[in-house]
Amino acid sequence: MIKLYYAPGSSALASHIALEDAGADYSAVRISFAAEEQKKPPYLVINPKGRVPAMATDRGILTETPAILAYIAQSYPQARLAPLDDPFAFAEVQAFNCYICATLHVAHAHRMRGHRWADDEAAWASMQRKVPQSVGACYDLIERDMLKGPFVMGEHYTICDPYLFTVAQWIEADGVDPARIPKVVGHRKRMSERPSVRKVLAQEHA
Amino acid sequence: MIKLYYAPGSSALASHIALEDAGADYSAVRISFAAEEQKKPPYLVINPKGRVPAMATDRGILTETPAILAYIAQSYPQARLAPLDDPFAFAEVQAFNCYICATLHVAHAHRMRGHRWADDEAAWASMQRKVPQSVGACYDLIERDMLKGPFVMGEHYTICDPYLFTVAQWIEADGVDPARIPKVVGHRKRMSERPSVRKVLAQEHA
Repeated sequence: MIKLYYAPGSSALASHIALEDAGADYSAVRISFAAEEQKKPPYLVINPKGRVPAMATDRGILTETPAILAYIAQSYPQARLAPLDDPFAFAEVQAFNCYICATLHVAHAHRMRGHRWADDEAAWASMQRKVPQSVGACYDLIERDMLKGPFVMGEHYTICDPYLFTVAQWIEADGVDPARIPKVVGHRKRMSERPSVRKVLAQEHA
Repeated sequence: MIKLYYAPGSSALASHIALEDAGADYSAVRISFAAEEQKKPPYLVINPKGRVPAMATDRGILTETPAILAYIAQSYPQARLAPLDDPFAFAEVQAFNCYICATLHVAHAHRMRGHRWADDEAAWASMQRKVPQSVGACYDLIERDMLKGPFVMGEHYTICDPYLFTVAQWIEADGVDPARIPKVVGHRKRMSERPSVRKVLAQEHA
């Protein structure tokens, strides 16, 4: 059975929602960032990167949200979470998720995790100041060019939707004015009303 | 026909090598970073992110290296560049490529592209100072846990190999001592002797 390691408020939410969407038989294991469990030996055996999510399967551990999401889509094809038979459309899904992972999430991480890329507090403060601009630029691009509507890829719900919903939890805290990205905020609202999302959020915040 | 937009010395090298490995019918279009062509309107029509690589196909444009690499593997299955019939093994390939994209390449980018995440020179200098450590930590993890050998995924060459080779071009400039990562450096050397790699490097540096 699949076991998903997550922390509330983290990007693991995307994989958690996708497992629920897929109808997977899984359990979710909470890792406490407050207690820094992600950096301690019991968890580092599971994921030496010291991050969440990590997903234990019968075959071994998987990490990296875009990889986990594509795995869920491929392993539960009846849930139709990605265009599995169309390499170009599948690549568009992956390109969106890579952009969230490597550009938007990275820009966001400069608000709280500046220590990954610099050692002094002045640099961390400088990074924090730019987050509204750098994260905002990502959302401007998503709003204008990437979010087709009603779902990210258009008419069909895919693994892009829970990922956008996940990072969109951080819009206000990142200092981005939600009024400037109405399509993104509308997507977030519709997503929040889906039963799978409500169930997962209730579990993560219980 | 496929058209790959690249800049010499950029991460586009990975997709370029993979196209050659696949035996694809493609052309490569050089974008000059020195002339900042990637930020000018003719290119922004192709890729509004203002980055390389971008790959034009009959269906449209694709971006993001992990997505492009998986697309090449799926579109040229006879080249056997990924375990396409095994979702878990395919996810391992994708997880490796996501780590290169979102962690290693991002750490590397703090040496030259600090302006993405801060506005003052002191912060840029602080970021640059940490690159040997942050990039080095990525290579330590790859050396210890991820590069199975002789290829990244073990006995079979995959789309992970040109990607690791691509970022490994920057090891010395990033201030990482190659002596501490002999498996990575051995992989780089073996890759550099492959005909597809030699051909692409000769073309990019002509």
